[in-house]
Amino acid sequence: MTPEDFRAYGHQLVDWVADYWRRLAEQPATLPVQPPVKPGQVAGQLPSKPPAHGEPIEAVLADLDQIITPATTHWQHPGFFGYFPANTSGPSVLGDLISSGLGTQGMLWSTGPAATELETVMLDWLVDLLGLPARFHSHGPGGGVIQDSASSAALVATLAALHRASDGAWRTAGVDRRYTVYTSTEGHSSIEKAVRIAGLGESALRLVEVDPQTLAMRPDALRDQLAADRAAGATPALVVATIGTTSTTAIDPLPQIGEICTQEQVWLHVDAAYAGSAAVCPELRWTHAGVAHADSYCFDPHKWLLTGFDCDAFWVADRAELVAALTVLPEYLRNAATSTGAVIDYRDWQVPLGRRFRALKLWFVLRWYGAEGLRAHIRHGVALAARFADLVRADDRFELVTDHPFALVCFRLRGGDDASNERLLTRLNAAGEVFLTHTRVNGRYTLRLAVGSPHTTEETIDALWRDLRRLAELA
Amino acid sequence: MTPEDFRAYGHQLVDWVADYWRRLAEQPATLPVQPPVKPGQVAGQLPSKPPAHGEPIEAVLADLDQIITPATTHWQHPGFFGYFPANTSGPSVLGDLISSGLGTQGMLWSTGPAATELETVMLDWLVDLLGLPARFHSHGPGGGVIQDSASSAALVATLAALHRASDGAWRTAGVDRRYTVYTSTEGHSSIEKAVRIAGLGESALRLVEVDPQTLAMRPDALRDQLAADRAAGATPALVVATIGTTSTTAIDPLPQIGEICTQEQVWLHVDAAYAGSAAVCPELRWTHAGVAHADSYCFDPHKWLLTGFDCDAFWVADRAELVAALTVLPEYLRNAATSTGAVIDYRDWQVPLGRRFRALKLWFVLRWYGAEGLRAHIRHGVALAARFADLVRADDRFELVTDHPFALVCFRLRGGDDASNERLLTRLNAAGEVFLTHTRVNGRYTLRLAVGSPHTTEETIDALWRDLRRLAELA
Repeated sequence: MTPEDFRAYGHQLVDWVADYWRRLAEQPATLPVQPPVKPGQVAGQLPSKPPAHGEPIEAVLADLDQIITPATTHWQHPGFFGYFPANTSGPSVLGDLISSGLGTQGMLWSTGPAATELETVMLDWLVDLLGLPARFHSHGPGGGVIQDSASSAALVATLAALHRASDGAWRTAGVDRRYTVYTSTEGHSSIEKAVRIAGLGESALRLVEVDPQTLAMRPDALRDQLAADRAAGATPALVVATIGTTSTTAIDPLPQIGEICTQEQVWLHVDAAYAGSAAVCPELRWTHAGVAHADSYCFDPHKWLLTGFDCDAFWVADRAELVAALTVLPEYLRNAATSTGAVIDYRDWQVPLGRRFRALKLWFVLRWYGAEGLRAHIRHGVALAARFADLVRADDRFELVTDHPFALVCFRLRGGDDASNERLLTRLNAAGEVFLTHTRVNGRYTLRLAVGSPHTTEETIDALWRDLRRLAELA
Repeated sequence: MTPEDFRAYGHQLVDWVADYWRRLAEQPATLPVQPPVKPGQVAGQLPSKPPAHGEPIEAVLADLDQIITPATTHWQHPGFFGYFPANTSGPSVLGDLISSGLGTQGMLWSTGPAATELETVMLDWLVDLLGLPARFHSHGPGGGVIQDSASSAALVATLAALHRASDGAWRTAGVDRRYTVYTSTEGHSSIEKAVRIAGLGESALRLVEVDPQTLAMRPDALRDQLAADRAAGATPALVVATIGTTSTTAIDPLPQIGEICTQEQVWLHVDAAYAGSAAVCPELRWTHAGVAHADSYCFDPHKWLLTGFDCDAFWVADRAELVAALTVLPEYLRNAATSTGAVIDYRDWQVPLGRRFRALKLWFVLRWYGAEGLRAHIRHGVALAARFADLVRADDRFELVTDHPFALVCFRLRGGDDASNERLLTRLNAAGEVFLTHTRVNGRYTLRLAVGSPHTTEETIDALWRDLRRLAELA
């Protein structure tokens, strides 16, 4: 494909994306948030073998429209309230387009000087933007890096913690003693996965009790568990505290947890995958109280900060520890810049060797919106969630299940059992106007409404509420 | 940013990419392959804090041109011969643009039915295209998935192998015995990293001797090492064989290694990260002899198959084993489709939970080029490498260091010591017309020329050769 072919097709595909985004926001909705598609339906429409000879882009676009789009869950839809959001934006897609075009593989500073340094500066910008501790800024011993996801951040935090807990012996000896890892019963599944991947086995994971009201980790329970494990001969290596748990956005009490970790000399990783974005608003920074205790911290601009997946921002207070845990230097990667020690080689901050130039999309987003624009976006989501919570609160057929410090509202039918709440969710989603998911809170089936799209409006919320009230009659 | 803003800016940025690609191919070159940039130069030109208010895209584009592009190592340059290639193409960038615009997060089938099924079909297409064993096709117990890189593929293969070697005990108990992992002394550094991440420690890694001529693993040495380890009470868990080692593209003898792994009941992972693409050409499939023994196999379409980073294609012969090793199912991810068991949830095939819709770029590439187009691309690279090797062979000041079955040529000054070869490489790269990297072969400094760009021509090779001969006079 020549540059001139690409120019012509590129314009066409940019138009495709612009038209798609316009369709998503149309009222009434013409695209169902979740498509009525059966397993095997997409595969069944595709040839079983690749073409022998090249086909025109037009043929691919026709299949895109007829096979792919109708079988797509529309994460960018204003009625998408499931899981946590994963919103992109115009500037993010533009930045990613440049990244694709440059095709930089920035495993080393020398293979992508601009990719490396822009990433460092963007992560420093985010420290400023979120009011994070100065120890994460690259001007000192700390620093930040883009991971693909909070899962991978949890994994590398686990590895760095093992390296520290073993005084470096782990690199050579592996898991040579009984290490333990702590998170709350509400901690994310990626922590269990990280513990398994790191070879500790699930038996090493301690799910610390939460307060049944706030669903936040109980510091006394953490302290007791640490003491019991030490008494039993285990080596506590890592505590993962959460700001904004996946189920209900509970906030673990970092000031107390942090003190315990300092006393016990255990690595503290803070997972703020979803809720970290809220810290761009000064009035929401109370949610980050105690974060200065963290040895590592991450949040996902790809969830609630208008940056397309994948973009997890991860910081450590001591980058030397992380690099020592992860570095491997074969001859074919040696180069003059690395040997000076004056540069960052981000391959040593992550699991994979290769890496894309993901800082570009973040740069486009942060400059296009500016701090005030991003604050307006977060406040918009928080306000819509509050609007919805007020509607729930005012109707005695429903109840709020937990607080809603961010833009997630957990609710259910007040008198309803699990089955009636599950039916309500199924019926609500069936029409395709909105998509919500569920969780269990203290064992009970609970609906989750996570606002995130910049295209969601008061009218989207009000229409959803009308549907909910109507369906509640049937439940 | 409205869809209409995006449309206008998008056209501008597509033009930027088209113009950039045109400039890369200009003769004489106007962009040096590796820029003359000092550490800190990019960061020093950027503000230390994010803007308070949004800025126009024009301002970002001006900085892109003045700060970023001049500090970029141009991986898509026709004179880029370093490492292994990481070539993208027009159709790949187009597919990725659609992926960015859709913003699908395909962690579950239900969150991206089209993303999931297109990925399965694309991986099946590649089985056909490369002539891989039918056991990797999804119609049986096997199947394929896109990983970010061969590093991550090596890691998940290690985890599945541990799961098997422990009869499933590893998930709960972790590394509860002395496992050993085998690759050759020429195996990729990611295997050492995977062993470390999995908690085995580097002491678990056995670097099996190679034949000093072919640099391929010696099956007898593997057999001896396995026997010695078993005798010492270790549990061999994984052998990683390589088709096309990073240093010199050596090919481990899979027929013999595979037989040993079958006898010893050890998981065999085959890493063909670079060289796998060659198998699209029937005349190069001899390099894959014995691959039917593999429990898992990977190659990187993002290296030599015109698909932008990241796109590693990874298969297992038994997907149930992989999923059993990696799955974690919290309540908030439960859904009707998953509970039927009729769908693939790719989150259980990888380390992270979230995932982009990467199958789209592969689909665009495979359809635009077709099998014949991709074969022509591979043959073009192989022929140019052969042309260069012939020039080296015909000049008694130089020598070929190894065979060149693919498109990598390893060479050096015949009489030169390490220092003179290193000087030669530094001088050759300094002009910015080409960029090569080095390795050590049997301890001796060796230059590597890896052809990969579709824009590299006979004239690029001949000009490089003229420079080399001129510089050899000075060495």
